[in-house]
Amino acid sequence: MDLNSVDADFIAGLEADLPAGILGEADHRYLEEPRGRYRGQAGVLARPQSAEQVSVLLRAANIARVPVVPYGGGTGLVGGQVMGTGPAPLVISMERMNAVRVVYPQENVLVAEAGAILADVQAAAQSEERLFPLSLASEGSAQIGGNLSTNAGGVNVLRYGNARELCLGLEAVLPSGDIWHGLSRLRKDNTGYDLRGLLIGAEGTLGIITAAALKLSPIPAATGTALLVVSSPAAALAILSLAQDRLGEGISAFELIHRQGLQFLTETLPQVRQPFATPPEWCVLVELGLARGLDPELALADLFEAAMTAGHALDGVIAQSEAQRQELWALREQIPEANRLIGSVSSHDISVPLSAIPEFILRGGVRIEALGDFRINCFGHLGDGNLHYNVFPAFGRSRADYEAQRGAVKRTVHDLVHEMGGSISAEHGVGRIKVEDIARYGDPVRLAAMQAIKQALDPNGIMNPGAVLRV
Amino acid sequence: MDLNSVDADFIAGLEADLPAGILGEADHRYLEEPRGRYRGQAGVLARPQSAEQVSVLLRAANIARVPVVPYGGGTGLVGGQVMGTGPAPLVISMERMNAVRVVYPQENVLVAEAGAILADVQAAAQSEERLFPLSLASEGSAQIGGNLSTNAGGVNVLRYGNARELCLGLEAVLPSGDIWHGLSRLRKDNTGYDLRGLLIGAEGTLGIITAAALKLSPIPAATGTALLVVSSPAAALAILSLAQDRLGEGISAFELIHRQGLQFLTETLPQVRQPFATPPEWCVLVELGLARGLDPELALADLFEAAMTAGHALDGVIAQSEAQRQELWALREQIPEANRLIGSVSSHDISVPLSAIPEFILRGGVRIEALGDFRINCFGHLGDGNLHYNVFPAFGRSRADYEAQRGAVKRTVHDLVHEMGGSISAEHGVGRIKVEDIARYGDPVRLAAMQAIKQALDPNGIMNPGAVLRV
Repeated sequence: MDLNSVDADFIAGLEADLPAGILGEADHRYLEEPRGRYRGQAGVLARPQSAEQVSVLLRAANIARVPVVPYGGGTGLVGGQVMGTGPAPLVISMERMNAVRVVYPQENVLVAEAGAILADVQAAAQSEERLFPLSLASEGSAQIGGNLSTNAGGVNVLRYGNARELCLGLEAVLPSGDIWHGLSRLRKDNTGYDLRGLLIGAEGTLGIITAAALKLSPIPAATGTALLVVSSPAAALAILSLAQDRLGEGISAFELIHRQGLQFLTETLPQVRQPFATPPEWCVLVELGLARGLDPELALADLFEAAMTAGHALDGVIAQSEAQRQELWALREQIPEANRLIGSVSSHDISVPLSAIPEFILRGGVRIEALGDFRINCFGHLGDGNLHYNVFPAFGRSRADYEAQRGAVKRTVHDLVHEMGGSISAEHGVGRIKVEDIARYGDPVRLAAMQAIKQALDPNGIMNPGAVLRV
Repeated sequence: MDLNSVDADFIAGLEADLPAGILGEADHRYLEEPRGRYRGQAGVLARPQSAEQVSVLLRAANIARVPVVPYGGGTGLVGGQVMGTGPAPLVISMERMNAVRVVYPQENVLVAEAGAILADVQAAAQSEERLFPLSLASEGSAQIGGNLSTNAGGVNVLRYGNARELCLGLEAVLPSGDIWHGLSRLRKDNTGYDLRGLLIGAEGTLGIITAAALKLSPIPAATGTALLVVSSPAAALAILSLAQDRLGEGISAFELIHRQGLQFLTETLPQVRQPFATPPEWCVLVELGLARGLDPELALADLFEAAMTAGHALDGVIAQSEAQRQELWALREQIPEANRLIGSVSSHDISVPLSAIPEFILRGGVRIEALGDFRINCFGHLGDGNLHYNVFPAFGRSRADYEAQRGAVKRTVHDLVHEMGGSISAEHGVGRIKVEDIARYGDPVRLAAMQAIKQALDPNGIMNPGAVLRV
């Protein structure tokens, strides 16, 4: 289906149907993405203030067959927010629909508009003594609508689930312009197909989320954090099992860190304090959030002792203060910045079944070594089987030296992930960068079903063309 | 689209493509449903042994345009498993695909075939010291495939979620006969639309689930149960908040019981021991499952004291032994049987936003009273906002006396639920009984999207015709 560029007639029509000031120029902020690999085409920018205005926009675009690019905080890492080729699009930024509409503390529910910044949603929950547990590096600028559209993950998935599990209901505008009023606050509602779950993770290809009813949690009574040196990734998994047997859902985060990441910190961010004189090969950052009556420091000490006795842990630091806790987290949270400063040859956001992680790390290392001289920084959300497996130039060399090998590195990692039953996009989504990858690795029956659903809900193909599915 | 009855040619074709003994007669066991309101038409019965055989069956049915009725444990309460009108169908029972294929204790994952009995899945998890938390009255005969197809709920949703939240991946056969190999054990996989979530809760109208990768949980270190007499439903909700602030996810169940239920037990099942000499108007059954280091009896005693001090609780019993625990649960679990023996005029499986429950109960009582002389037994999963709101004849009268009023009672309850932002089917699904209700109360944009998805994935309309959506 051919699409048309926005033109003067299209814009004039929208201007007639919308209040002044909704339309504007799509300046560079809306056309770039964080890794600088895509540049969007300048079409026209709309910044609607209500679902009704989004409806006017989509209805017009659908009739005129103009492509629509939904735009949240712009923090996506897979190019889902910028359309680099094809007709000039209508970019719809949700930034003005940024209200937290209401919090229901007794229900553990919060209703926010799609453009609300994730950190603001967290703060609104906090102010009612509740927790909105979605937490990720870009939370200061990412918008909740984008988080939902990409089914965002982050550090607390182990305990609280992905964005999809944190959403009870949606208000959304479908490609036809019809508004679905689905802001349910219900925990149970079995009255038909899971349209909510379908729009979440569809990356703006099936409609635009305009508001969401989100699930809150009680704030754990006490929090504790430790960094444990572990003898291997398998030992880290054994400690996770130990911890779950003892503390059940009390484990909020369980992050793997490799020596390479600590060395990158030393190299690029020497001001980040490191607790160990010699960076250990593997460590895990464990965060507990426990119920009243339990002492997290004691629980971590017990866990550490059991892990030492079993030979899984070799050393460890338990935070004794909030400042120490922040310091331990800073290690984990600064690794992506260190990575950026080093400059990766190829970065991968992958997951494999939990018990396959040690073998994946082993085999991955062997295969990458066979390709040449690289450094691998493998770290991330071990508790979810989600690793950021990033491949870097050898010391003293640069990203540019490896241009010719980038494709082979990526292919090698993805092939191995696929062989081991994993996912080549654990939490970042497909966007435009991975469309060909899912065409290669995805189940063909599922892909055909996705195409059929896309065709059914967006027959003119206006929504975020080129993202997720081949055009 | 017109469908055709199974005929001799169709059966002969299947016999040629399948091993002997797969096809047979659909005897009465496959044509009845627990409430005896529908009787299915005798078509032909298939009991496949593999996804490949299910594929052969669906491919043939799709070509011949023969309706297909998927059949699990037959315990559904909304007629989803029996097709009472239209052409004689192909009934596909999953009973022979009942293996628990494998348990991965370290991953907290279990892979089971669709025909596995829920209790067997629970036992397989238990034997590896893990918990599969889905728990409901019919677990001894319900099959996991049916549980998933109906997105089953039960008593532990508050803590662990509905069936959809307990499933990581599916193997399923689409109406075309194509097999989707989606038995992912991944916690994070953002590679496209949530086909898993769409098939779950679709009640067999979009395909047949043949196997599932299920999420297990650690078994809580210690469990405690109490029955608290509360001053009102609002007080019960206040106690829930208190409990969540103290114990976080440690609350496994929070069930509301009304005096009427206890009186029905006295009337019909006098052997069930009741802890209070005079049945209190409202009580809640609280179950805790806590981490190591916490004593559930102590935690319940503390909670009870705080609730007494605040005036929310009036009396209470904390189970001191497993036998006492069973006794308290028997009260809750025997109420449905007592209801059955009394014989309801109309039963409703509804949910409303949590904070609206007290008002719903109040207004419901007033509206039902305006219709005539009834007894109301309102009980259920308070922690999820899910009430079984059942209306019974006055004492000494029978269900038959109220035939003429049944429709008005149902309509009154559903109208009120709808006014209050609730769901007319919280956990049982739509089946055939509630198709007109969701057409009346459902969001029209969502219903249109559901129809479009159905048309896209099942263009010939062979899958469970008449369930969920109007034919």
